[in-house]
Amino acid sequence: MNIKVIAFDADDTLWINEPYFREVENKFADLLSDFLSPHSTARELLKVELENIPLYGYGIKGFMLSMVEAAMRISEGKISLHVIEKIINEGKAMLEKPVELLEGVEEVLTRLQHHFRLVVATKGDLLDQERKLNKSGLTPFFHHIEIMSEKKEADYQKLIKHLDIEPHEFLMIGNSLKSDILPVLNMGGSAIHIPYHITWEHEKIEATDFAHPHLKTFEHIKEVLAWLEK
Amino acid sequence: MNIKVIAFDADDTLWINEPYFREVENKFADLLSDFLSPHSTARELLKVELENIPLYGYGIKGFMLSMVEAAMRISEGKISLHVIEKIINEGKAMLEKPVELLEGVEEVLTRLQHHFRLVVATKGDLLDQERKLNKSGLTPFFHHIEIMSEKKEADYQKLIKHLDIEPHEFLMIGNSLKSDILPVLNMGGSAIHIPYHITWEHEKIEATDFAHPHLKTFEHIKEVLAWLEK
Repeated sequence: MNIKVIAFDADDTLWINEPYFREVENKFADLLSDFLSPHSTARELLKVELENIPLYGYGIKGFMLSMVEAAMRISEGKISLHVIEKIINEGKAMLEKPVELLEGVEEVLTRLQHHFRLVVATKGDLLDQERKLNKSGLTPFFHHIEIMSEKKEADYQKLIKHLDIEPHEFLMIGNSLKSDILPVLNMGGSAIHIPYHITWEHEKIEATDFAHPHLKTFEHIKEVLAWLEK
Repeated sequence: MNIKVIAFDADDTLWINEPYFREVENKFADLLSDFLSPHSTARELLKVELENIPLYGYGIKGFMLSMVEAAMRISEGKISLHVIEKIINEGKAMLEKPVELLEGVEEVLTRLQHHFRLVVATKGDLLDQERKLNKSGLTPFFHHIEIMSEKKEADYQKLIKHLDIEPHEFLMIGNSLKSDILPVLNMGGSAIHIPYHITWEHEKIEATDFAHPHLKTFEHIKEVLAWLEK
């Protein structure tokens, strides 16, 4: 291995993210409970979100707009304005949440920073991801921050071109097989998968026993250290 | 002058943008006309937008969310859900609009591309600005695309560091004195101001007779060619 750049996914790799969405989804289901069961509400919301991704992309603002739309659709136009107001307020509260680092992240970045160029490669709203990075206190560890509208193979190719390295010099660490791992392996890079206990439906893929010579799977980010120092 | 990089603002410098917002604002005022005069509705909407900029940043999604919030506030919770639905649909239509280049842009980029590194420096939603760039057909002209959450002096400093040039080697072309011109002049760069006939209130500053040795003001982007070729 001749890794020069290690890229970290941000949400649910460096800090907690998905549980906040799940929490708001549960509140959303409560608000709609006169119209539909929580399970069906979650399914309808996901449907609206997926329809809107090509227009809105990823992130909290699109999530808020999709909740507003789903509420109107599920209630067939009967939801009270009060619910719309609550949705907006819940979304705003998400945008103001403190950032909670995952355990071990600071130690790993501290130990790796002098041996590799560290970068962040994340999807989501530009301003919101910048906000979380600032709040996280992790910015000084990173040589470059890439906020991407998608994480497909072509997007990673653009990134390594920008970083001026070859695919085999690039290692990606993240929690999503679909966004962080498969596209990187496909272009000839290496990847470390650190599953998080909650994954958004849209990021789930069928891959229970997926294996690849350039892929490692760890339970905890600290295991990266022992492996790289081998 | 020893300019190496010319950066272009995008909205209302390369293509039409503000008139689309103005059009939707007028429709919004119509929808609220039972509650408030068009003039006061516009003022209330702007107030909500400005309050939300620190959270939402710039772009259409934040504009949509602010319209929903303003509609509820202006009507004191009495607006019909139908109006909320219309707001969402108007916003979605904005996100799908074709891109209309301003006259002369392609000619200017064609003539400058071999003499300077051309970049785009724009605020707004990541995905939406990428969409507009793709639709514009202008991407091949640009060496680098920078989508920024803010355009203040520190943001430009980061950009020129990233481009590996000195401030005096940087020329910014744009329609907003506040976002495109003043911060660039302040850090020691050059700027060309090409006012657009409509400016968002938030971008307006009091500067009727503003002058600076590194600033030129042109009426039309084509004048840039004659000036640079002098």
